[in-house]
Amino acid sequence: MAKQKKTPRPRAANPRGFQDYFGAEVTARSEMLRTIAEVYHRYGFDVLESPAIETVEALGSFLPDVDRPNAGIFAFQEPGEDDGDWLALRYDLTAPLARVYAQHRNDLPTPYRRYAMGPVWRNEKPGPGRFRQFYQCDADTVGTASMAADAEICAMLADTFEALGLGGQYVIRINNRKVLNGLIELTFGAAGSTRSSEGEESLDSKLDQIWDEGVTDAVLRTIDKFDKVGEKGVRELLGPGRLDDSGAFIDGWNRTDEEIDRILGFMLARGASNEETLSNLRKLISESATGLEGVDELEQIAELLETQGYGPDRILIDPSTVRGLGYYTGPVYEAELTFEITDDKGRPRQFGSVAGGGRYDDLVKRFTGQSVPATGISIGVDRLLAALYATNRVSASAQGPVVVTVMDRARMADYQSMVADLRNAGIRAELYLGNPKNFGNQLKYADKRQSPAAIIQGSDEAERGVVQIKDLILGAQLSETASHEEWKENPSQIEVPRDQLVPEIRKILDRHG
Amino acid sequence: MAKQKKTPRPRAANPRGFQDYFGAEVTARSEMLRTIAEVYHRYGFDVLESPAIETVEALGSFLPDVDRPNAGIFAFQEPGEDDGDWLALRYDLTAPLARVYAQHRNDLPTPYRRYAMGPVWRNEKPGPGRFRQFYQCDADTVGTASMAADAEICAMLADTFEALGLGGQYVIRINNRKVLNGLIELTFGAAGSTRSSEGEESLDSKLDQIWDEGVTDAVLRTIDKFDKVGEKGVRELLGPGRLDDSGAFIDGWNRTDEEIDRILGFMLARGASNEETLSNLRKLISESATGLEGVDELEQIAELLETQGYGPDRILIDPSTVRGLGYYTGPVYEAELTFEITDDKGRPRQFGSVAGGGRYDDLVKRFTGQSVPATGISIGVDRLLAALYATNRVSASAQGPVVVTVMDRARMADYQSMVADLRNAGIRAELYLGNPKNFGNQLKYADKRQSPAAIIQGSDEAERGVVQIKDLILGAQLSETASHEEWKENPSQIEVPRDQLVPEIRKILDRHG
Repeated sequence: MAKQKKTPRPRAANPRGFQDYFGAEVTARSEMLRTIAEVYHRYGFDVLESPAIETVEALGSFLPDVDRPNAGIFAFQEPGEDDGDWLALRYDLTAPLARVYAQHRNDLPTPYRRYAMGPVWRNEKPGPGRFRQFYQCDADTVGTASMAADAEICAMLADTFEALGLGGQYVIRINNRKVLNGLIELTFGAAGSTRSSEGEESLDSKLDQIWDEGVTDAVLRTIDKFDKVGEKGVRELLGPGRLDDSGAFIDGWNRTDEEIDRILGFMLARGASNEETLSNLRKLISESATGLEGVDELEQIAELLETQGYGPDRILIDPSTVRGLGYYTGPVYEAELTFEITDDKGRPRQFGSVAGGGRYDDLVKRFTGQSVPATGISIGVDRLLAALYATNRVSASAQGPVVVTVMDRARMADYQSMVADLRNAGIRAELYLGNPKNFGNQLKYADKRQSPAAIIQGSDEAERGVVQIKDLILGAQLSETASHEEWKENPSQIEVPRDQLVPEIRKILDRHG
Repeated sequence: MAKQKKTPRPRAANPRGFQDYFGAEVTARSEMLRTIAEVYHRYGFDVLESPAIETVEALGSFLPDVDRPNAGIFAFQEPGEDDGDWLALRYDLTAPLARVYAQHRNDLPTPYRRYAMGPVWRNEKPGPGRFRQFYQCDADTVGTASMAADAEICAMLADTFEALGLGGQYVIRINNRKVLNGLIELTFGAAGSTRSSEGEESLDSKLDQIWDEGVTDAVLRTIDKFDKVGEKGVRELLGPGRLDDSGAFIDGWNRTDEEIDRILGFMLARGASNEETLSNLRKLISESATGLEGVDELEQIAELLETQGYGPDRILIDPSTVRGLGYYTGPVYEAELTFEITDDKGRPRQFGSVAGGGRYDDLVKRFTGQSVPATGISIGVDRLLAALYATNRVSASAQGPVVVTVMDRARMADYQSMVADLRNAGIRAELYLGNPKNFGNQLKYADKRQSPAAIIQGSDEAERGVVQIKDLILGAQLSETASHEEWKENPSQIEVPRDQLVPEIRKILDRHG
């Protein structure tokens, strides 16, 4: 016989940044997604399920790290072929939508309203609560430039929060990239990547050059911090620089006070009503054609939403909303939950952002050469689910099955038929299938399963045609509160005729809700 | 300005072997999986969702092609690290279960009943109807050697078919690897990979050697073809060889007639009842301790199932059931749908296998060193879904939304509020958001959306406070069958007061079911 090499045992562990989800964790998320899908379906959106794997070519590189196009994604060459295509796991649901729309556009309705839910993968450094596989939930309308599509997405998002029981606890903020671009154009004279690239660059001018290369990005990124650092912080970041909480100094953009005032004036342009905000914006932006176009669009959206009863308590125009992604070209939206939670240090803070999106008119163009207007929203599934946990709208501990214990191994068929009776009545139930020798282990098992009740039938009970039912929830309560006398009476265990098993169990389940 | 290199447009296409799923295709599958999940939940099974990515080490190599361990899977090195772990997309749901159980065994109940549903990936040559990403749906019980676990899995599978409306159209066949091993031991004197590896091998003895290396595999693979080639075919394959339908000659195993009779006697041991089958088996296998152990196990399963009312019309002992996978160690199950469909060539045939499984006691041992008994079933999701389509239990064409058309672009808010009224009443509805200029295009859009009704309100109707409703389903019927007179009356278009919009639409929806 050939000598066999002993291979070491494999490690039973997830790769870094991946996680298993058990029982009620999975159910809570699917039920949330189901509720969302019902609202989206009612709005006429069709579900789309594209595969996890796309060609790298089709995905493009819209992730933040533009210098390393494959950084941040899981990419691999078509296996088995040296010059095969490069494939990758999708990193979001928008890039696949652009590919799907370009591929199937002759068969799809125009406009195409679609929603998609599923995992995406990011090859990023994992950290606490930061995973390399997570869920996204998107809804987009492709093929229409109408602001009614943007208004509809915001209304649908509001309806979704209502359907999830979060009425009165959310606000959706709308802004418009055209207004932001107009502001930057007016303030700094340029809104794009104009760059003088003559001769050697001096080290001193390095920062200036970065600024020139992407004025818009630089400003957007800075004012996106408004919520976190406030007016003073933004003023420092656009000006001389800022000492942050950790003591590190962050270089500023060295803009003039006049320029900074203009930017901040814009950030603070929110009025008491949408009308007032729009009027403020119109004044600030009056010299920019692009900016005014943006204000007109916001006005259309506001009007459509108000007609349908979505007042500014739920959806409002807010000039300080930015959204990071570079590809937005028109309206942008951000949804926040407004109830308070306590942070790591015990301080109260708002729950914050759970969804965001906007209009992006150039994603499909990559494939077809023709501009296809599109707008959409993406819900942060894990964030929203955390919010439902925080407000006790879902629970991670679902009720376990009724457990039928095994007193007499020769009568497995009898026990099995009790389980069958319960299941046939729609009651979640199971037979104890471990080693029945130690009865204590059977009750420990029932506890671990969070069982509401255990059923016991020894040979004595079998002869008399009865079963014992242990109400495990009542039992747990008694063990904490009952006096010795109450305990001795043991009201948590009752004996019932075998043919009364199902109704008696149902009584117990009803009692505990 | 730096000259910009023009990059070619990316191709809008899936990688080979991947597919997009739209609308009702997705919904039909999720509803089927939901029904299955409800049954599994009632049986006390907990859902588990493990990530798509595992370490190659943890996955092991249980795919058929054992010579090329990475063939058949999508594997890639931990990105960004030259000596990083090798990762891979899961190729089934059993390998991840073994890893999960080994990793979390101290927190999980024993036994652990779990179900899992989700995509798996195989890097195989794609073909018609053969994709590189597909769904699996598994249920397994880990940590008990009790045959009650195997019986339960079979009963649960039967209940699942009933819940899906396939009552009377399925049969679940049970066999036992121990019986098969006993048969091989008795017939050929060896059940494993005993191999004499002295000196040079002669070419003539090549086939004999393959036989000796895996008598069990060779026999199992041959008798697994019983359904396809019948008694005569199996006799030829075990004997001198066989000329198949395509004219190719397949080498036989050159076994003696006596040996072949013994194998075939076993295959044909099925009696009129489970009792008779078991009694036949017991006689054939009486000299093998392993074989008798297997018959005892089958007897326990049959008894438990019969007590619960699962007769042999639904679940039966069938000695010809094999199941290909090498890792089964005890009972094996296979579920077939028995209704007829017509094949590619128009011939009637049975729909065939949609699920299979069995007991495997060594998968967790890879990680922990300790044997952990387990048993489970896997449903072929695409096959089962195809069966539901074939029996008209699901439909790929779901009803589209009611479409509110746009006659007057200035009154978008009015149209939007009609849509909002319908949606608030729970009716799927949408506003036409394409270019409203050409009204014909709006009705074409409604057709493409499979809308039951379109709503029209021009300025005239608006002044009179009414709307026109076009019943598109009735309209389509009339256009096929109506006389010129009937057509002129146009009963498919009605005018109703604006405030009667919702009830009138509901009437139309009710009428068309």
